[in-house]
Amino acid sequence: MDGAKMDQMLKVRMEEVERILKTYLPDVSGMQRTVLEAMEYSVLAGGKRLRPIMMLESYRIFGGNERVIEPFAAALEMIHTYSLVHDDLPAMDNDQYRRGKLTTHAKYGEAMGILAGDALLTYAFETAAKAFALTFDAARVGRAMQVLARKAGIYGMLGGQVIDVESEGKPGMTLEKITRIHTLKTAALIESSLMIGAILAGAKEEQICQMEQVARNVGIAFQIQDDILDVTSTQEVLGKPIGSDAKNEKVTYLTLQGMEASVAEVNRLSDEAVSLLEQLAGDTAFLEALVRMLTVRKK
Amino acid sequence: MDGAKMDQMLKVRMEEVERILKTYLPDVSGMQRTVLEAMEYSVLAGGKRLRPIMMLESYRIFGGNERVIEPFAAALEMIHTYSLVHDDLPAMDNDQYRRGKLTTHAKYGEAMGILAGDALLTYAFETAAKAFALTFDAARVGRAMQVLARKAGIYGMLGGQVIDVESEGKPGMTLEKITRIHTLKTAALIESSLMIGAILAGAKEEQICQMEQVARNVGIAFQIQDDILDVTSTQEVLGKPIGSDAKNEKVTYLTLQGMEASVAEVNRLSDEAVSLLEQLAGDTAFLEALVRMLTVRKK
Repeated sequence: MDGAKMDQMLKVRMEEVERILKTYLPDVSGMQRTVLEAMEYSVLAGGKRLRPIMMLESYRIFGGNERVIEPFAAALEMIHTYSLVHDDLPAMDNDQYRRGKLTTHAKYGEAMGILAGDALLTYAFETAAKAFALTFDAARVGRAMQVLARKAGIYGMLGGQVIDVESEGKPGMTLEKITRIHTLKTAALIESSLMIGAILAGAKEEQICQMEQVARNVGIAFQIQDDILDVTSTQEVLGKPIGSDAKNEKVTYLTLQGMEASVAEVNRLSDEAVSLLEQLAGDTAFLEALVRMLTVRKK
Repeated sequence: MDGAKMDQMLKVRMEEVERILKTYLPDVSGMQRTVLEAMEYSVLAGGKRLRPIMMLESYRIFGGNERVIEPFAAALEMIHTYSLVHDDLPAMDNDQYRRGKLTTHAKYGEAMGILAGDALLTYAFETAAKAFALTFDAARVGRAMQVLARKAGIYGMLGGQVIDVESEGKPGMTLEKITRIHTLKTAALIESSLMIGAILAGAKEEQICQMEQVARNVGIAFQIQDDILDVTSTQEVLGKPIGSDAKNEKVTYLTLQGMEASVAEVNRLSDEAVSLLEQLAGDTAFLEALVRMLTVRKK
């Protein structure tokens, strides 16, 4: 798939996700309107919507063509957003800006930052549960909800965040630990994205498992590529300062394994993911191009 | 039901809930063990387990006798606990002690307090989703999950907390707003408790609605009684300082309506709840006694 076509397809799918998000975000009205405003502000503050785009694509690859996927796509983006809102809190990363805008706690105050994150997380499950009304196959929706909760929680994204927070500034970082952090903190939500698409479309166990593996490779490769770009790119291309890992004496996959092995690992993970997708019967061209874009990326 | 028998039954049911909680809490092991410890510490720090006890009772009243209710009972207590953990945070009430023990953030640090609350909330939904494996009636479990999420979220407990936080120290408190705060912040989780018991036992729509009303009455009456005891009780009986509402010049149901009307309203709500329960075919004696204990209480 050439770059121009890919950009065009991405744009169309982003617009699809924006429409779904606006459909499923709660109305901003009533006595609790501040938290509703803060939720909407956080979710609509931008972002590439990669997780819901990948979920919708996985669903289509396995023949899904119903609206049952939409509440899950919205729920996943709400969970991703909640994690950013809470990561930005003063007790965590204490960030005042994200994507050039005030972070939620910086705009609405710390208490409302905590509550808006809690609200997004809870509303994600309320939203996902709306899928029960859109299908007769409640068991499938139940399975999807279980995956959503698990991959967001202690055995997924949140678990990775805990290990990351606890490792910060401490000696003893190992390759095993780094890979665990990447797998949980970054890959888990992508796993839920591709898995839920497959589950709701009625894919076979083996295929659901394959999609989980594709997502894991994408997540881990994305993070190693992050380390590589921090050394090889420029601030102009990346849009953020480079050399920050070296400055913070951060132990990364790259510092432990070296440049050559790191580049090779990104390529291996990326090739394997694409090859897993090629084995499927559906039209996987867009998802393959997306996997390449996210792993062997230049910025 | 006499007091001694009630105490004995309550004790047995508390032990049942403790057993369920221990079954469903995650194992404390692995790289993310700090958050797992903090979750266990928070949930096992005590509490009367009233919400899961009421859920189990509602389930039994409508003839339920399967294990499918257990993950929901555990999930509800996890959600209640997450709300306490986040309420205690420095940016919220900034409490160092709860029930004579260090609060979660005081013991594990603020970042881990936020993460442990997030973890409990997410794990509650992961736990509830385990019910899908315990029944063939996935639609019923789906409905229960929807109620759980809704009553915990912006249209339930969290919404009430937002209105409460925003009203603090500001003029303009009205009876409507106070009742809304009580209904959302306190009654909503009790509503989910009694409703989910009824839903999973296969109760009729009308009965589910009745249980919601019983729970709403209990929640509102409990809060008005709280105002009353703050004026009429003693520190020895209550186990906490009295007169705090007057000291903080807090506008409450009692200050707006006066003592006579407040006592009458508690009795009305309590009587109505008991009368709704009396209309049901099942054995409602214990739940009726519990409603009386929670509303027209002396401490």
